[in-house]
Amino acid sequence: MKIDICFSPTLYPYYEGDSDTIVVVTDIFRATTTMCAALKNGASSIIPVESLEEAQEYKKKGYLVGGERNVKRCDFADFGNSPFEYTADKVEGKDVVLSTTNGTRAIETASGAYSLIIGAFSNIDVVADYCIANNKNVLVLCSGWENRFNFEDTLFGGALASILSTRGGYEAKSDSAVVALSMWNSAKSDVQGYVSQSEHYGRLIANNLLEDIVYCLTLNTLDLLPIYNKETKKIKIK
Amino acid sequence: MKIDICFSPTLYPYYEGDSDTIVVVTDIFRATTTMCAALKNGASSIIPVESLEEAQEYKKKGYLVGGERNVKRCDFADFGNSPFEYTADKVEGKDVVLSTTNGTRAIETASGAYSLIIGAFSNIDVVADYCIANNKNVLVLCSGWENRFNFEDTLFGGALASILSTRGGYEAKSDSAVVALSMWNSAKSDVQGYVSQSEHYGRLIANNLLEDIVYCLTLNTLDLLPIYNKETKKIKIK
Repeated sequence: MKIDICFSPTLYPYYEGDSDTIVVVTDIFRATTTMCAALKNGASSIIPVESLEEAQEYKKKGYLVGGERNVKRCDFADFGNSPFEYTADKVEGKDVVLSTTNGTRAIETASGAYSLIIGAFSNIDVVADYCIANNKNVLVLCSGWENRFNFEDTLFGGALASILSTRGGYEAKSDSAVVALSMWNSAKSDVQGYVSQSEHYGRLIANNLLEDIVYCLTLNTLDLLPIYNKETKKIKIK
Repeated sequence: MKIDICFSPTLYPYYEGDSDTIVVVTDIFRATTTMCAALKNGASSIIPVESLEEAQEYKKKGYLVGGERNVKRCDFADFGNSPFEYTADKVEGKDVVLSTTNGTRAIETASGAYSLIIGAFSNIDVVADYCIANNKNVLVLCSGWENRFNFEDTLFGGALASILSTRGGYEAKSDSAVVALSMWNSAKSDVQGYVSQSEHYGRLIANNLLEDIVYCLTLNTLDLLPIYNKETKKIKIK
């Protein structure tokens, strides 16, 4: 088995997200971390939508809606993109619509994949266990930043590659996997310090979101696996 | 001034290759290294073409043509993609058409740039001097491998970022520049050893091209600067 890493939704067609592959979409800051948190707090499902127009249509129909662009909550939305907003008293038993700058676009890009799961540092061991148990090749799809390479999603890819190669015997030999793995080996003793070099860290700090940063970079705080269902277009816990 | 690095021609639209930017196209293994070598050996110009059909049309018109796909020389072509093939006795005074798997596609992608130059390890100091002398932002466009991220072009970007930041005071702060710079810092004491982790290194070794690898990874063997002219669509020495 092998793990590969795709650095941008735009590059997805050039990687193998075929029928024998589990695609792990990640957007560490913050969409996939936030999805995990909302589901942990009892949301029935997350409905990822790419455009804000679509999110507004859902809002008109009475759905709870998270909407974010460039770190800020959209005016019409009930929530922004912070994992701390999706508390149990608000989301329990509800379908929650979410549209963010990068993460929901990545999910849309890979929505035809044979198997699409949601990965974050907060559930990384559960993601790894699922991949190993299914004995499939893995492709990490980084959401990036406006289609550009980003640091923190790549680092998650490296961390997952490290676990899968150590615990599951996976090969991580593509150029992108080798680089991501090397980044993780440099970062793992001080993840936040390492990520502080990144562009998005600066954006979050500028918006007083240090608490979000710390949460999003903490490993294994949750034991759930969100899976995208391409028939219903909803993300639910396995 | 700043230097940024784009990991794939497909991602070029999301980076700033605008009127204030020098775009440095690189394809270390081997197209841009080979272009430098051919020009050093007296070729009047390189005419990069994306498709093999176009290269064959030139061949019919009597041009010297280099054609390569997946490391191998195309049957119809005079040359493959090795810098050692373009000897002075063959290329001196001639326009040489070149179509390769990745590098010529990258040039086509950025052919509208305000300023497009050809970079390789063999001419990296000349490239750096030109950037600093012109006092412009720099974008390194990596040719990649079939639009995917690759190791050796990124490493060239990191090496150039290192020179420009040290000698020209450039900032290298984007996520991709930070990663490339970190790769270069790990690699610089043993570039070939470091690059031996890469996918394309393996492909070249499998084709008995160790000599090409060594040449392509050696710094500053040439003192020329190939520049793309968007009117004539030819690459000539400045």
